[in-house]
Amino acid sequence: MTEQAITLVIGGARSGKSSFAERLAEDSGKKLYYIATAEAHDAEMAARIADHQKRREDRWITIQEPLDLARVVSETAATDRVILVDCLTLWLSNIMCRDGDVEAYCEDLLAALKNIKGPVIFVANEVGLGIVPENKMARDFRDDAGRLNQAVARLAHDVHFMAAGLSLCMKRDGNPQQ
Amino acid sequence: MTEQAITLVIGGARSGKSSFAERLAEDSGKKLYYIATAEAHDAEMAARIADHQKRREDRWITIQEPLDLARVVSETAATDRVILVDCLTLWLSNIMCRDGDVEAYCEDLLAALKNIKGPVIFVANEVGLGIVPENKMARDFRDDAGRLNQAVARLAHDVHFMAAGLSLCMKRDGNPQQ
Amino acid sequence: MTEQAITLVIGGARSGKSSFAERLAEDSGKKLYYIATAEAHDAEMAARIADHQKRREDRWITIQEPLDLARVVSETAATDRVILVDCLTLWLSNIMCRDGDVEAYCEDLLAALKNIKGPVIFVANEVGLGIVPENKMARDFRDDAGRLNQAVARLAHDVHFMAAGLSLCMKRDGNPQQ
Repeated sequence: MTEQAITLVIGGARSGKSSFAERLAEDSGKKLYYIATAEAHDAEMAARIADHQKRREDRWITIQEPLDLARVVSETAATDRVILVDCLTLWLSNIMCRDGDVEAYCEDLLAALKNIKGPVIFVANEVGLGIVPENKMARDFRDDAGRLNQAVARLAHDVHFMAAGLSLCMKRDGNPQQ
Repeated sequence: MTEQAITLVIGGARSGKSSFAERLAEDSGKKLYYIATAEAHDAEMAARIADHQKRREDRWITIQEPLDLARVVSETAATDRVILVDCLTLWLSNIMCRDGDVEAYCEDLLAALKNIKGPVIFVANEVGLGIVPENKMARDFRDDAGRLNQAVARLAHDVHFMAAGLSLCMKRDGNPQQ
Repeated sequence: MTEQAITLVIGGARSGKSSFAERLAEDSGKKLYYIATAEAHDAEMAARIADHQKRREDRWITIQEPLDLARVVSETAATDRVILVDCLTLWLSNIMCRDGDVEAYCEDLLAALKNIKGPVIFVANEVGLGIVPENKMARDFRDDAGRLNQAVARLAHDVHFMAAGLSLCMKRDGNPQQ
């Protein structure tokens, strides 16, 4: 992992994205920062967050940030640290739930990543491989999620697609697999 | 790209299928023909079509054909042209919306492809990787879409799976990746 | 295929999982056992089962087992046989429909696989790559299906991801692809 490397780990629900991303971060030997975008709106979500935290134990410093990713990622990044953002798709959902300006938030994040001072690993859901959703908001959401994944993948040095806890490398050291 | 090569680009919504397919076509150095199966039933669809057209600018000759793909692809194909069909999944949806005979339409297309006079690139959605849809029509649709993708992939020289704007090659020069 | 090899074939609906798994089994030269977890609750399901059986013809011995996979797989396994279990995701659905203890069933199956006496090929659906389902039961189901796929993939020697009838190898001879 080079000093300013950006990594994107995409996949479905329960595909092992977070565990894989945590191993990548831990293998770097750097100080571990976890930026959690999830908010515990209900018991189901709270259980999911607790499950993730339990796995990370005390080796990680956890920062909760549902919205202002651009600022928090910029301020936290450093050459002796690795940041894991889990996950971009919930962040997008947080913005939409508050009627925020998705495009502006995404532009801010991408601008921040171009000047980042240390490595960042993003976890994101791929949500576009099912039947077209019947409601318009879900269709907009999957369009926005797909566009954001593409934009981060363009900046990323490494992109991994996960299924069943295993990864397929789609981009390595800045080179798309062909 | 050989003279009669068939290429299939599959992936989810907003996975970068169309852009990737357009680059493949443009790299061929041949005259560019775009067969659009989309119909602008509403403002959302019209915006999506306009977005795609804007990217292609004037370098492409665009033919709108919602149904009779077999004939239009056959008549347009030529060794100095490359045809991009975008997309097979909307075409299937167009047939179903008109209560057309899906199997007959698919057989006609596959028969046409076996005697095609020039290269064709197909874009198609993979729609079977979500939860089983609750309504029967959506289940039938994803079965038909999956079957069609398999049938075109069998004839194809190259098959690419897209996510986050990146491709994984599943078949190259007629050889499945193993 | 080594004596106790476990293989997992995942993919979406109509992605060619069953056909691919059948070819793997037939290429082994061993006696062919098919463990069908599907139950014909309605005409749609009955047609799907009949379609699968027709393809396998008489070369296979078919065992119908909707629930007790651990026992049936253990009792059937042998070095001169290959077992194809089609599929894990329907099995999970069968357990949930009966309010069974998903965790206990999965633990029993995984324990059985650790002491298995012959090769087993599992087919499973990847169902987590669409939009988050609106109903809680569907969300639980895709979580359970994802966890089960990960657990079986950990034990598996080979894991294949299918789309359009083609496979991408995610793990080979016990080694994850990187």
